[in-house]
Amino acid sequence: MKPTLPTTLMANAIRALAMDAVQKANSGHPGMPMGMAEIAVALWAGHYKHNPANPKWINRDRFLLSNGHGSMLHYALLHLAGYDLSMDDIRNFRQMHSKTPGHPEVDITPGIETTTGPLGQGIANAVGMALSEWLLASEFNKPGHDVVDHYTYAFLGDGCLMEGISHEVCSLAGTLGLKKLIFLYDDNGISIDGKVEGWFTDDTPKRFESYNWNVIPNVDGHDVAAVDAAIAQAKLSDKPTLICCKTIIGKGAPNLQGGDKVHGAALGDAECAAVREHLVWESHPFEIPAPIYEAWDAKAQGAAVETEWNTKFAAYRAQFPELASELERRMKGELPANFEQVLAQAVAATIDKKETIATRKASQNAIQALAGALPEFLGGSADLTGSNLTNWKEITPVRSGQPGNHINYGVREFGMAAIMNGVALHGGYIPFGATFLTFSDYSRNALRMAALMKQRSIFVFTHDSIGLGEDGPTHQSVEHVSSLRLIPNLDNWRPADTTESMVAWGAAVKRKDGPATLIFSRQNLPYVERDAAQVANIARGGYVLRDPAGAKPGEARAILIATGSEVELALKAAAALEAEGTPVRVVSMPSTDVFDRQDAAYKASVLTKGMPRVAIEAGVTDFWYKYVGLEGAVVGIDTFGESAPAPVLFKHFGFTVENVVAKVKSVLTA
Amino acid sequence: MKPTLPTTLMANAIRALAMDAVQKANSGHPGMPMGMAEIAVALWAGHYKHNPANPKWINRDRFLLSNGHGSMLHYALLHLAGYDLSMDDIRNFRQMHSKTPGHPEVDITPGIETTTGPLGQGIANAVGMALSEWLLASEFNKPGHDVVDHYTYAFLGDGCLMEGISHEVCSLAGTLGLKKLIFLYDDNGISIDGKVEGWFTDDTPKRFESYNWNVIPNVDGHDVAAVDAAIAQAKLSDKPTLICCKTIIGKGAPNLQGGDKVHGAALGDAECAAVREHLVWESHPFEIPAPIYEAWDAKAQGAAVETEWNTKFAAYRAQFPELASELERRMKGELPANFEQVLAQAVAATIDKKETIATRKASQNAIQALAGALPEFLGGSADLTGSNLTNWKEITPVRSGQPGNHINYGVREFGMAAIMNGVALHGGYIPFGATFLTFSDYSRNALRMAALMKQRSIFVFTHDSIGLGEDGPTHQSVEHVSSLRLIPNLDNWRPADTTESMVAWGAAVKRKDGPATLIFSRQNLPYVERDAAQVANIARGGYVLRDPAGAKPGEARAILIATGSEVELALKAAAALEAEGTPVRVVSMPSTDVFDRQDAAYKASVLTKGMPRVAIEAGVTDFWYKYVGLEGAVVGIDTFGESAPAPVLFKHFGFTVENVVAKVKSVLTA
Repeated sequence: MKPTLPTTLMANAIRALAMDAVQKANSGHPGMPMGMAEIAVALWAGHYKHNPANPKWINRDRFLLSNGHGSMLHYALLHLAGYDLSMDDIRNFRQMHSKTPGHPEVDITPGIETTTGPLGQGIANAVGMALSEWLLASEFNKPGHDVVDHYTYAFLGDGCLMEGISHEVCSLAGTLGLKKLIFLYDDNGISIDGKVEGWFTDDTPKRFESYNWNVIPNVDGHDVAAVDAAIAQAKLSDKPTLICCKTIIGKGAPNLQGGDKVHGAALGDAECAAVREHLVWESHPFEIPAPIYEAWDAKAQGAAVETEWNTKFAAYRAQFPELASELERRMKGELPANFEQVLAQAVAATIDKKETIATRKASQNAIQALAGALPEFLGGSADLTGSNLTNWKEITPVRSGQPGNHINYGVREFGMAAIMNGVALHGGYIPFGATFLTFSDYSRNALRMAALMKQRSIFVFTHDSIGLGEDGPTHQSVEHVSSLRLIPNLDNWRPADTTESMVAWGAAVKRKDGPATLIFSRQNLPYVERDAAQVANIARGGYVLRDPAGAKPGEARAILIATGSEVELALKAAAALEAEGTPVRVVSMPSTDVFDRQDAAYKASVLTKGMPRVAIEAGVTDFWYKYVGLEGAVVGIDTFGESAPAPVLFKHFGFTVENVVAKVKSVLTA
Repeated sequence: MKPTLPTTLMANAIRALAMDAVQKANSGHPGMPMGMAEIAVALWAGHYKHNPANPKWINRDRFLLSNGHGSMLHYALLHLAGYDLSMDDIRNFRQMHSKTPGHPEVDITPGIETTTGPLGQGIANAVGMALSEWLLASEFNKPGHDVVDHYTYAFLGDGCLMEGISHEVCSLAGTLGLKKLIFLYDDNGISIDGKVEGWFTDDTPKRFESYNWNVIPNVDGHDVAAVDAAIAQAKLSDKPTLICCKTIIGKGAPNLQGGDKVHGAALGDAECAAVREHLVWESHPFEIPAPIYEAWDAKAQGAAVETEWNTKFAAYRAQFPELASELERRMKGELPANFEQVLAQAVAATIDKKETIATRKASQNAIQALAGALPEFLGGSADLTGSNLTNWKEITPVRSGQPGNHINYGVREFGMAAIMNGVALHGGYIPFGATFLTFSDYSRNALRMAALMKQRSIFVFTHDSIGLGEDGPTHQSVEHVSSLRLIPNLDNWRPADTTESMVAWGAAVKRKDGPATLIFSRQNLPYVERDAAQVANIARGGYVLRDPAGAKPGEARAILIATGSEVELALKAAAALEAEGTPVRVVSMPSTDVFDRQDAAYKASVLTKGMPRVAIEAGVTDFWYKYVGLEGAVVGIDTFGESAPAPVLFKHFGFTVENVVAKVKSVLTA
């Protein structure tokens, strides 16, 4: 798109919309949109390849605000460019169920690529998108047929650069040479506490050079031509590019610009009036002059670029029909037609083999069984590949200049998870990545973001309890399984054996509207025999694994509920109890999240009302009272672990048949 | 200490102990101790100021392994130097309740300054210690009396440098110019997945120069003299120093050194024998020749340096008796004699004032009320000072060259929390630091480490629920309060008004053996009337705030349990229920952690057995079944929030008198 009137007016339209929307809501962040307005003009008017009529066009450039508090910048751009975002939507900024929430949210507003606000994660998502574009292009493009070919642009501020995750993901992006990744840094010298010079004095260009980035320093962020030239230069680089734009926060607000007061609060009526005078902006709030709309309108150009691509894709389809269909399937996130069959065979194979192995090994077997049918698998580990067992036979490690399907993320747990979210958002891959369960803490907010954004990121966590042994309490998860269960829309699985592990993997892959965690043991766990109905019920999250021999439903005197490595103990305790005349039921509960979504009748058939309950899990007890109630008991650990061999620890912490039997008896006599 | 025999032999003693201890345990990490042995000789024999007979001497240098998996390096050093760590202790490496757990743990092993293992946090702790030393020196030293004067040394590896937290804390250390901080980087080019060049290609010296560090690159880490010279040079710098030591991981293991196999597993008997041959090390496992013990023995030198300091401190005490006593008090972590009185007055003042204010403001008032009596307060915020309200009238912001008592940590939540842990470990200060509750996710593993290490770090989290309003679901805590409650030994407080806020602050300050979170509202909360007994019971974590008018205990038909902003709703619902003939009790439960520690009789007096219960909290419901049971109900939120004004949200999510009344009725008729 070529601007048809002075870019100053185009920028001031952003300023006016941002200022007025924040003022009307009496809530929001005018400083960033007013400060980055010219940068936005340079990118959107000169470079950004998109189609307002089809925000999901697969070959669009991706554009993200990592400094998501400046959401009004993006909403203003979407409105002005012709997306389905009306002036009424702008007026409803930050109101209940509006299309213009406080921070950008994917799938709520057309054209928003990711949900941002938690600083640093937007640029991590951008790294994931650029990674996806590169890998997908390497898989699908053919000579003369660059059907996957787009840039990923992100805006970011000082906050993103202070966050640790910026180090993790920019270091990796530099190592991998993601050359179609372009960041525009709003270098305004201000953060919420004031002038950043008191707490942030990095030489940022030098820092990014140390990551092997192309750095374009000292660009005047209020000079559209200068920013435009920098972007043009960035597109020619064989490295990712950081463009450092010197800006004035809140530029245009004559009494507040350049200070922290303009960051996160409405300007007030007086200052809004002063802005109008200062900018000679004569339109009323929420009015944009027609010539400015015309200058911004990206609909025709958007239609043209998509049409051009459609032609290109038609030619590609003519020559490579299977590849074209496959690319479409993968970008839609649909599974291959044979997936259910492959999964069923893989589950059956676990039943045939009856292996006693660590569930992390069972997980690797599951990956191996599915990977042949799922070319969209993009695995990885945060420097624990051989421990997490995320690799399979046919992997090609991703390296600079060498695309592949398994990523050594390095010791970067948070970065890994947020990059995976970017991969999931981009489309084309199902990302999974692993670390020890304890270090889910490091990535926790990215797990939350995956759940909030309903993305299919699969988080593999191994070494899931005191079963990890000698590495000790820093590495032993105690609170983590329960704590992950508290995150809304995150499905957590802690399988007990090879069959449950396979089913859990299948569930995670099939879940299109949210992430899953797959939580595995370091140590061997015995194979558990099940009938066909029981196998089928694993997918319901919880099921009756054992009823007393010869008993009818309801004849058990108590229910033992267990997960993962404690299912074996529950079965042994049940046998001991039955031997001494106390018939009990054993419920395996690999996913409380999934079980909770079952219908009431099914749940009641598993957890029969009035039947006393004892839960067993090598973790904190609090969560389990939800299932056992005030009259039930929990065999768990409410302290940190210890450094010792795993069998010693399980005994020390009371994971013994004797202790479980005693707990059941205490519940029966209570 | 001057080495009295070839440093090679001293280094090989470390290698032998590490290799043999790992071999005996068949578990552990020999690669780092064998690779950093000469670096350890250079530091411990030439520079490290410590006294094995008194590991708690307040002016000792601090020495940390941020790459804590190399724990056997530190245990070997402590044993050889003469600490109370016997060869039997070394033999018991990684065994239950030994003094030599898998990763270094503070307060288990004499001479261990912090618990490490979760990568990157050790160097963050070190930054906190160097910060404490600087601030404490500025407070207490007088011309000619440098009673606080020590270095902080940390070893670190590639893993620590890949972690995002390394960026956060090294950037801040550079900005603040912590010149007595010296890091020794084990640059061996190997991490668990193999050669790091595939995923970690930072120019690390350049990166640290961008942080304004003094960088000494390209030091041969196996040349004791070279490392010694680098440390000497570092001590002269006016910046923090990174010494980059090129090393060979597992050096001395002829068939495994330089590869990832030597990182984290026993070498095996054959390779142990090969090491003995290669190093010409003829001693049996767990035997050290007497001359080597003599060379390492630091007891005499340690006694001498402490005696010298004692003389210095005596002179200081003679001239500044009050300062000397105050320094001793603060380093012991004891509160001022008048603290209880100040606290009681502050609580009384909240009762006098009856203010309806946000609890974040009540928190600021609490800080203000206590700060005069607590010169050890070291406050801060992760770039949200004006929102978290961690500042008070008399603060001096800490800046480069300007010591003070309030730190603008920048947008570095994880770094802040781990630095605070270092401050707490060092002694002399009570650190508190704040961010929005949602971003407790970013710092979560550091909260866990504070709890594991039993340190008095006070984590202030404001904007605690959907009450945050328009910023939307990315910023609205839903699962966080419950999820923090799952971390062992972390006391969490969510106060309902000014009085509870004051008591919570008092509890956090008085708690010497663990951290606390203080969780506050953005929005105003009304003052609640209490009698003296109720005020006294706040400190018990949960108490009866209201019983039905004129009723005897036990006459209530149900119990409403609420925390924080929902206490007001519980009281209103109780009034409504009573008006229609259903008398109910209201329990305020600001800290479930503290309530759970009360005696059974007290707990039963608050939560009377058999009385139906409804819990109300603007967060996930799962946790509360622990208190309400299967027959109770919870008014909560099991989805993410929304972007809208807070009153709209509370109504939308069912935090209304009508809904609570209906829930109580449903429980009564169940």
